[in-house]
Amino acid sequence: MSTERPPAEPGAWMYGLIVELYPICRSITGEGLRETLRRLQQWIPLTLHEVPSGTRVFDWTVPKEWNIRDAYVKNARGERVIDFQRHNLHVVNYSIPVRQTMRLADLRPHLFTIPNHPEWIPYRTTYYEEAWGFCLAHVDYLALEDGDYEVCIDSTLADGHLSYGELCVPGQQTDEILISCHSCHPSLCNDNLSGMALAVALAREVGRKQRKHTYRFLFIPGTIGSITWLARNEEAASRVQHGLVLSCVGDAGRSTYKRSRRGDDLVDRAAAHVFQHSGQDHELLDFVPYGYDERQYCSPGFDLAVGCFMRTPNGCYPEYHSSADDLSLVRPDALTDSYEKCLRILDILDGDEVWLSQNPRCEPQLGRRGLYRGVASGAHQLPGYELALLWVLNLSDGRHSLMDIAERASMGFEVIGQAASALESVGLLRRAPASPREAAVGNPPLMPQFAQPSGPVGVPPQAAKSTGEPELRVKP
Amino acid sequence: MSTERPPAEPGAWMYGLIVELYPICRSITGEGLRETLRRLQQWIPLTLHEVPSGTRVFDWTVPKEWNIRDAYVKNARGERVIDFQRHNLHVVNYSIPVRQTMRLADLRPHLFTIPNHPEWIPYRTTYYEEAWGFCLAHVDYLALEDGDYEVCIDSTLADGHLSYGELCVPGQQTDEILISCHSCHPSLCNDNLSGMALAVALAREVGRKQRKHTYRFLFIPGTIGSITWLARNEEAASRVQHGLVLSCVGDAGRSTYKRSRRGDDLVDRAAAHVFQHSGQDHELLDFVPYGYDERQYCSPGFDLAVGCFMRTPNGCYPEYHSSADDLSLVRPDALTDSYEKCLRILDILDGDEVWLSQNPRCEPQLGRRGLYRGVASGAHQLPGYELALLWVLNLSDGRHSLMDIAERASMGFEVIGQAASALESVGLLRRAPASPREAAVGNPPLMPQFAQPSGPVGVPPQAAKSTGEPELRVKP
Amino acid sequence: MSTERPPAEPGAWMYGLIVELYPICRSITGEGLRETLRRLQQWIPLTLHEVPSGTRVFDWTVPKEWNIRDAYVKNARGERVIDFQRHNLHVVNYSIPVRQTMRLADLRPHLFTIPNHPEWIPYRTTYYEEAWGFCLAHVDYLALEDGDYEVCIDSTLADGHLSYGELCVPGQQTDEILISCHSCHPSLCNDNLSGMALAVALAREVGRKQRKHTYRFLFIPGTIGSITWLARNEEAASRVQHGLVLSCVGDAGRSTYKRSRRGDDLVDRAAAHVFQHSGQDHELLDFVPYGYDERQYCSPGFDLAVGCFMRTPNGCYPEYHSSADDLSLVRPDALTDSYEKCLRILDILDGDEVWLSQNPRCEPQLGRRGLYRGVASGAHQLPGYELALLWVLNLSDGRHSLMDIAERASMGFEVIGQAASALESVGLLRRAPASPREAAVGNPPLMPQFAQPSGPVGVPPQAAKSTGEPELRVKP
Repeated sequence: MSTERPPAEPGAWMYGLIVELYPICRSITGEGLRETLRRLQQWIPLTLHEVPSGTRVFDWTVPKEWNIRDAYVKNARGERVIDFQRHNLHVVNYSIPVRQTMRLADLRPHLFTIPNHPEWIPYRTTYYEEAWGFCLAHVDYLALEDGDYEVCIDSTLADGHLSYGELCVPGQQTDEILISCHSCHPSLCNDNLSGMALAVALAREVGRKQRKHTYRFLFIPGTIGSITWLARNEEAASRVQHGLVLSCVGDAGRSTYKRSRRGDDLVDRAAAHVFQHSGQDHELLDFVPYGYDERQYCSPGFDLAVGCFMRTPNGCYPEYHSSADDLSLVRPDALTDSYEKCLRILDILDGDEVWLSQNPRCEPQLGRRGLYRGVASGAHQLPGYELALLWVLNLSDGRHSLMDIAERASMGFEVIGQAASALESVGLLRRAPASPREAAVGNPPLMPQFAQPSGPVGVPPQAAKSTGEPELRVKP
Repeated sequence: MSTERPPAEPGAWMYGLIVELYPICRSITGEGLRETLRRLQQWIPLTLHEVPSGTRVFDWTVPKEWNIRDAYVKNARGERVIDFQRHNLHVVNYSIPVRQTMRLADLRPHLFTIPNHPEWIPYRTTYYEEAWGFCLAHVDYLALEDGDYEVCIDSTLADGHLSYGELCVPGQQTDEILISCHSCHPSLCNDNLSGMALAVALAREVGRKQRKHTYRFLFIPGTIGSITWLARNEEAASRVQHGLVLSCVGDAGRSTYKRSRRGDDLVDRAAAHVFQHSGQDHELLDFVPYGYDERQYCSPGFDLAVGCFMRTPNGCYPEYHSSADDLSLVRPDALTDSYEKCLRILDILDGDEVWLSQNPRCEPQLGRRGLYRGVASGAHQLPGYELALLWVLNLSDGRHSLMDIAERASMGFEVIGQAASALESVGLLRRAPASPREAAVGNPPLMPQFAQPSGPVGVPPQAAKSTGEPELRVKP
Repeated sequence: MSTERPPAEPGAWMYGLIVELYPICRSITGEGLRETLRRLQQWIPLTLHEVPSGTRVFDWTVPKEWNIRDAYVKNARGERVIDFQRHNLHVVNYSIPVRQTMRLADLRPHLFTIPNHPEWIPYRTTYYEEAWGFCLAHVDYLALEDGDYEVCIDSTLADGHLSYGELCVPGQQTDEILISCHSCHPSLCNDNLSGMALAVALAREVGRKQRKHTYRFLFIPGTIGSITWLARNEEAASRVQHGLVLSCVGDAGRSTYKRSRRGDDLVDRAAAHVFQHSGQDHELLDFVPYGYDERQYCSPGFDLAVGCFMRTPNGCYPEYHSSADDLSLVRPDALTDSYEKCLRILDILDGDEVWLSQNPRCEPQLGRRGLYRGVASGAHQLPGYELALLWVLNLSDGRHSLMDIAERASMGFEVIGQAASALESVGLLRRAPASPREAAVGNPPLMPQFAQPSGPVGVPPQAAKSTGEPELRVKP
């Protein structure tokens, strides 16, 4: 594992990682996914988990492992008119093996294009139905001549394993913050190499010094991966206090945050706060049970406070799920901005505390402690930092956290936090011993009908083989 | 009782009923009201109740019964210049008998007109003050010549009964939905023959097959009728879960719903939902303690969740309480629209349930149950029905009813209900055993000061004679 | 004490008081403050309290007493180029004694001006730092010639007392309404002679007949005065149900109310109600922990429902804290308007009650009690007063106070109160025996960490000498 740190410009570093991973043909299982996770181990001490095909995970079954070596369609002249070697989107992901010669008319039902964007190759999958197909640019489709075609998909679909990567960075508390990104898409950059690159950059930053919460990073195939992880880790899931799913974080669009099912948990408020105080255009979306793996984390039996951080959401940019989601769609500056906004959100999640004023009756005399000049200078308005001191003192009554104070004062979380530190340093503020609010925001016990043992789900620990390094804190 | 069903166009059927009832001179008691109720028995098995004059009903007393045969003012030439036979609005409703010759100057204080609408006859009453008078067009008033006039009101005001009609349609539950309309206005079409016709049409539809709630339909004289019913039926009133007062439902104006005193009970949310999803202009009004019989149902000692469904509200159209509220003001298409909107509201009241997902941990695999194609077809957006499936699964945690889900998803109640049925059919959803929400929305116990026995109010059962058919479910 | 009543135009009377007090050089201690309070005793039976220098009051210490006889800067020709006798703002308030001849260059750091308003003398203080200085118009500052200047500040800063005035007007209840104004500013009219004059006028009006609440009026030096009072009167503070800080109430600007820390307590709602129903431009500000003595009353250990009534807020008008805040800035009509608005707020605080309808089941028959004509007159809309009767009857269920009713009905508190009185007079309304709401709005017990005995703070009763008349109700 490399110990070099990301360069000053994290977006450039992330972009470099995207460039490296772009050519690999990933899927929800198989060597492409496994190879991708191994490459991430260069940067972070990721643990690779392998879950056997056929394992029951809640209502689902881990599918057979899919691998592909080659795929093409040759015309009568032996020319590859569709060639997996040129772009791995050309084959429908999870296509079963085929080797057959057929007439164009019989081939057509297996061909997929985007007539509105005739130069782009679509991205199609057939995970849960045994089928096969090719994707191609509509212009190439129109150019196909009648005649016989040799069709070859040199793939295997057989018992194997589902792979995912996991990194746990212990904090002062065992309560966890979950960062999750899907890692199953082939050569698509914004969806979701950008999310993987951002998760790696965040993991490296988080690992530089111990933080309050324990952080858990998941690099998983979409849907089946989060379901598999949840089925195998119900206890760890119960420790998740907040979380972010990362997807489509590298395009030039404005930042978007999709709220958790809870809607106004701390992570939701933190994202709104960071966006609003950025002064930039942004969008806040309510939860809908469709999208990425937040669908699973926010299923009613878990109901975790996990939102989704994006730029332009899935399905809302024309290049989505096509070959046009390429290296030109993601931008280093957008990646940097996503990185900084996520870090600010994480800083709030870690930094939000309930403090108690040690001088609740009337204001303390800040002047004699050197904290306060007021308007002695003759100005009519109080400087923001001194107003932050007054806000923190006024609201640190055991019922307001720093985030509550920042929201009520309409001030940035940073200056509120700085004021709290200054007040603590002179003994005017003390950490609330066992905040009732922390208990309140914890995960409530599952409803009785949900809390029953879910039976033999997941894979027994001994059945799962782990590869990669043991779980370690990142060495900066 | 006729068993023929309303024609395909319910507005035309309702309009026909209005045409039939329009000429009758109704009042809050008397033969006109009684005859009207008897005619409704052609269509629904209405029970007629007769409550004797002098019966104490809470703070009120059932008044004497008023009947009228003729009324006129003759000029010196013996010509009827005001003639009850030409329009029953010409006599002030509840006028005491008069037979007298008097000078125009003495007659004038007994004459009422609408100077702003000189062709219209106003509608005036004197229920609780023994007086008499005539209403006439202002143009006719101005044409009156000096001289002596023969004044005759051939009415009786004597001990008798107050009549009202009641129909109870039993459902699976004893909890009730109340539909109430006033039936005391003489030849006025929108106010409130339209409400009566709509109540009859709804009763016929509700009687076609058993529904969840028991339905109770009341055809009553305004104010004194609802007070009388409530005084005699406190136990039945305590079973009312939701209700609608119907009035002014046939004019061309937009639909209006006036919320119950509770403001956001299910009936209030259902009406708002139906209006908003109609895509049509509409109005939602907050409760005010003035209007129709919702004033009584929403008095604090009852506080029933009863709203008022209207088109243009009382007092807000110029023809209100005048002879211009005639057969030209109500329109079959508006009646049909009111009928359909009310039925949709009732469908929500009956159909709102709390379900429990049987697969709360992560999403179930809908694809293998044939319920879900997702975006496999290549579209970027999920079809509404599949999104409804996900919403119902995600929120069926025992704390959300279908209406809660429809509101949060911003989707129509119908598609949410269809999704719930489909999920139940494959075993993914089960009815919540004893929903805490159903208990919650039930009527809370009356406050102590209200729950004391109210003393000898109402009429003892044996004192009230009932006419008409026994209570029966409507035979379709 | 004079028993003459304020003239019909209270603003003119208040303006006269401001004129009388304007020349006095007040500070947070000393003879100017003491003399001011004595003059108020002409009008209200104010008790003067004297708290010794060095007394610990929570985190603060009562400062030494400051007195000043003369102060000037003489030029080489012996001319007073800066002269305290001409304007008491010329000396920095709390300047230590100085008698020295110095060069202009050495004098300059002690001179303060407002370059943007070159004709105005600024107002500067140095309460908690032993220093000295002069304030002057920027034009005069620019005219100073090089050379030696004789500097004299004939002041004393020595152990003495902090003075404040207090008036308690007993009511039917021991629960209190607090009216507080700071009295420490020298020749500044809007800030805060206007607040003092308004407080005196209100005290005289409140004393004319017994009111529901006990009223307590405080005339105190800013910050240290309210801290001192709170430290010495924790029990009285616990009885404060509502309160107003008065400041800057005489300028021509619109009325402004700054909410209490609680944000929606009755005083906050009452102020909003009075402003909204005034039909005049106004402003409602959320609480911020900066401003006048509400900072102390709303500190978390007290958290009193005390808002701040102003016209243009501190710091928001250019003349603020300068010699331009003079007799031309305050206007009798603005003072009258402030007086009337405050009285309306107090009337709501005193008049808000929870009533119980004695006829909760259906409406009572108001007509036979002469309270109701309804629309018998033929009008389509109900008169406001009759609608108020219906609202009060409908909502007097033990859960709504008159203020709740006024807010829900969007009607003025006065007409709602009149309706309640009329209904009570005919026996339809009865005062709720022990309103749960009154208990609810009472001050909740302090949080455990705040409720611990605060130790030996404040001055023992025997150590404080009181001057002035004993506490008495004002004789009208």
